[in-house]
Amino acid sequence: MKQERVNNVLEKMAAAGIPQLVITDPAAVFYLTGTWIHPGERLLALYLSCRGNHKLLINALFPLEAELGIDKVWFNDTQDGVAILSGWIEAGTPVGVDKNWPAHFLLRLMEQAAGSRFVNGSVIVDQIRQCKDQQEQELLRQASQLNDLAMAQLLQLIPGGYSEQQLARRLLVIYDELETGGCSFNPIIAYGANATDPHHEPDGSTLQAGESVIIDIGCKKNDYCADMTRTVFYKYVPGRARKIYDVVLAANERAIAGIKPGVRFCDIDAAARAPIEAAGYGKYFTHRTGHSIGLEVHEPGDVSAANASQVQPGMTFSIEPGIYLPGVAGVRIEDLVLVTETGCEVLNKFDKQLTIVG
Amino acid sequence: MKQERVNNVLEKMAAAGIPQLVITDPAAVFYLTGTWIHPGERLLALYLSCRGNHKLLINALFPLEAELGIDKVWFNDTQDGVAILSGWIEAGTPVGVDKNWPAHFLLRLMEQAAGSRFVNGSVIVDQIRQCKDQQEQELLRQASQLNDLAMAQLLQLIPGGYSEQQLARRLLVIYDELETGGCSFNPIIAYGANATDPHHEPDGSTLQAGESVIIDIGCKKNDYCADMTRTVFYKYVPGRARKIYDVVLAANERAIAGIKPGVRFCDIDAAARAPIEAAGYGKYFTHRTGHSIGLEVHEPGDVSAANASQVQPGMTFSIEPGIYLPGVAGVRIEDLVLVTETGCEVLNKFDKQLTIVG
Repeated sequence: MKQERVNNVLEKMAAAGIPQLVITDPAAVFYLTGTWIHPGERLLALYLSCRGNHKLLINALFPLEAELGIDKVWFNDTQDGVAILSGWIEAGTPVGVDKNWPAHFLLRLMEQAAGSRFVNGSVIVDQIRQCKDQQEQELLRQASQLNDLAMAQLLQLIPGGYSEQQLARRLLVIYDELETGGCSFNPIIAYGANATDPHHEPDGSTLQAGESVIIDIGCKKNDYCADMTRTVFYKYVPGRARKIYDVVLAANERAIAGIKPGVRFCDIDAAARAPIEAAGYGKYFTHRTGHSIGLEVHEPGDVSAANASQVQPGMTFSIEPGIYLPGVAGVRIEDLVLVTETGCEVLNKFDKQLTIVG
Repeated sequence: MKQERVNNVLEKMAAAGIPQLVITDPAAVFYLTGTWIHPGERLLALYLSCRGNHKLLINALFPLEAELGIDKVWFNDTQDGVAILSGWIEAGTPVGVDKNWPAHFLLRLMEQAAGSRFVNGSVIVDQIRQCKDQQEQELLRQASQLNDLAMAQLLQLIPGGYSEQQLARRLLVIYDELETGGCSFNPIIAYGANATDPHHEPDGSTLQAGESVIIDIGCKKNDYCADMTRTVFYKYVPGRARKIYDVVLAANERAIAGIKPGVRFCDIDAAARAPIEAAGYGKYFTHRTGHSIGLEVHEPGDVSAANASQVQPGMTFSIEPGIYLPGVAGVRIEDLVLVTETGCEVLNKFDKQLTIVG
């Protein structure tokens, strides 16, 4: 067990009036125990209690020999894991459960357990995870450094006539050669008209002169995620596309310039939106400005109008404004920032000035 | 909307006393609407009501121009999608929700909505999905045909000195060249000692003479999944490993021979276990005998001691007994079967007699 982190969680549980927590998210379990267990569709639960009756419930399919400093309880596919968990729940007090716990587990626990009420308890662990410690910050830096190297190699391949899918597959080889832990998410490579769909999946499309290429890629390294987007142009840049690029770059830079402790996430979102709206493209920036990142590529803590909480030192999140203008071009420029005592550090270093390849 | 399928669901809802259903699983939404929407962490909900007030709630990030024959309701990241959904819920009657719906959505809906109680409603759609119609059966056949071709190509590569990871990556290229829709799950390639862990992830290990190789692979084709495991030996077969292979093959064949409508899943599981237990290896067959398959590689309907329901024509599931004996060998042999009126059809055709490569 990562005792300091567990102690932080127990302190916050007491303060929130949630004396017991059922933690089922594999990344949260890793954060608190130092061990990855990927149970797939099966039940995994780290039960933490302010009374100290901590237990880890694991399916026997996932053998785990390491001594974790917590009581491990095994069950198999013929046993009812939720009934075992239910036996630990303390009667008459609230139970916090993880935000993504599948409904069928929660509904069965609600049927069986004596907890007074069930609440989304993820916020307790998630808020602690939002502020990365020194070791985590260094691992995030290293992941972004490798992602910079991968981006450089990938851009050199663009004139080679590869389809989006082929380029995405080459990225897997590049990440492998760089000894990363693979992708932190399915890479987005989008040419031309496809780049005007912010969630396009790579297909067989090939690149034509004058089109933009959105490259949104991330690797993992030692469990921590990178995530960066660059948009380049093939052979030349049409006038309106250049204008869009300039506006998106200004939005990215303006948002990053304003980041420091105490600023609200929604203010950062507004700072990114302002240049885009001023240029008349507001309705073509169709998504939030960014998301927190760490062990998972999307962690709680959106950079959006809906998030009025303040950023704190150690938080890491993306700044990724974009304009998706059908018939003209799609452009997105994404960096990862780490909030420092006085401002922020950009974790990835890859150049973001307008670039023409081929 | 796939009206016949929707009508089946509405009929079962009425029979189950669940007059409203919140369907959020992308595969279930595809099954009923004919359209894939992958909302990631965002809310997607197909609301079906016995009163006919059907609606599809979609985040604006996922544009969908097709006319689906259902009222589409859009929301964006600054709006509360659950509140919109809550407004449709009929007061005082039960609400079925999908089994894997993240707890935070369910807890918020419980706070806001007037439904009399919340139950796991997935079983309604899942039971209908378990029996594949003619078109689905043909698509499953085609996926397994392609998987047979991929297995043949992959086995030819084994003497090439590839690591598990390299072989797994080559499989992606093979699936691509065969014009499949990619993997239906992360391939398992396990050499030697690694093959004694049924859930091993491919790593840098290379193959030694006398070791077994477990190859558990599946592609998708037109949205339907294949899944097959073969175990081969490199250069020669040690005596005890041959014995294990023979026992696993007997288990696979005995289980398949007994499949016909009316037989219980638990009986099929017992049939697979019997030869393994008789040979004294019972404790080394550590997992269920199989799982249902279709649009998803693991669908509800386990072939296990815990499932006493009867198989019906049109059901498709895997039969995959294995023995994992540390220090000796790991062997698993997996086929997909389709239940017919009188017995079953094996969807994959790849040979399963003991094979030595290299």
